Amino acid sequence: MSAALDFYFDFSSPYGYMMDEQIDAVAERFGRAVRRRPILLGAVFKHTGSQPLPSVPLKGPYSRHDLERTARFLALPYRLPDAFPISTHRAARAFYWLEAQDAGLARRFTQQVLRAYFIDNRDISQEEVLTACAATLGVDAAALGEAMAAEAMKTRLRTECDAALARGVFGSPFVIIDDEPFWGVDRLPQIELWLERGGF
Amino acid sequence: MSAALDFYFDFSSPYGYMMDEQIDAVAERFGRAVRRRPILLGAVFKHTGSQPLPSVPLKGPYSRHDLERTARFLALPYRLPDAFPISTHRAARAFYWLEAQDAGLARRFTQQVLRAYFIDNRDISQEEVLTACAATLGVDAAALGEAMAAEAMKTRLRTECDAALARGVFGSPFVIIDDEPFWGVDRLPQIELWLERGGF
Repeated sequence: MSAALDFYFDFSSPYGYMMDEQIDAVAERFGRAVRRRPILLGAVFKHTGSQPLPSVPLKGPYSRHDLERTARFLALPYRLPDAFPISTHRAARAFYWLEAQDAGLARRFTQQVLRAYFIDNRDISQEEVLTACAATLGVDAAALGEAMAAEAMKTRLRTECDAALARGVFGSPFVIIDDEPFWGVDRLPQIELWLERGGF
Repeated sequence: MSAALDFYFDFSSPYGYMMDEQIDAVAERFGRAVRRRPILLGAVFKHTGSQPLPSVPLKGPYSRHDLERTARFLALPYRLPDAFPISTHRAARAFYWLEAQDAGLARRFTQQVLRAYFIDNRDISQEEVLTACAATLGVDAAALGEAMAAEAMKTRLRTECDAALARGVFGSPFVIIDDEPFWGVDRLPQIELWLERGGF
């Protein structure tokens, strides 16, 4: 199997959720694994001077409409959560803590959390929502709660955000195959061709 | 034939050029005509607080790379012009002047000008480059030169930019089918499905 491809996302990114639902199957068809890297878009946007999509005039209303249409186009369930956008540092720290134990567990946690937010309208900024998601995967709630507040995990997440920025990541979803960067769920057709041909 | 679809673009938009090369064939397959509406992105960006892509940190370098890759993906010739971005008010005014005489002529002029810029690296902010493009289509250079400076055409272009903003247009390319808005050349697959099914 060739090197894993890197998939950067923010847990509050709707297009990131749509990528999460599709990227494993695409990668697997070409013998690749997926290495997830949750980041905080807020930290990244400071460097690019970007605003969260919903708050941009004209672009905000369009994006809400485009998200629903794109979800239908991709045949994915989706609704814009009532609490949006939200802070996702707890979810991201939980991810890295779980990943250190079991990468597959962290992947399943990601899917649970994104679906809880974008399908079931649960506020995933809340610790108890995250521990409930993890509990369905057999993760101890108290241990996860401690990990989300631990200094080591705060540092870890900061390090990951800095590393993402250093690789040029400025949005979510953002996929890097070897050194080739792809921004946006609408780049999936190019990602597939790239994996199929080893570049084009 | 159903109502024409509206295609908004700025003459200096590379993704706009890529849309221009494809939209007629797509529309024609579904019995639709294309009504081109050149606009000035600078005027639009004032309302959204957006910056031209090339000047945004991280996003700028990525977009230059993505443009080349997307052109290869779409099998279109393309190079980033040496003079980029440029002012396109002359090209847009020329378009509306030509369109008032012959919509087909304005369409061919658009293609000539976009190809001169994005394939042949000619500076289409210059009057003489635009009149040379038009001359190959049999348009009188002196008359076109006058039109590009005429008060009536300045007003016309401002009116068109205001009308675009009023419809929610905030970028290039931007396609509106009936009342359904699509931003970006990467929305072509959704545009095709929309035309095929009359919505989805």
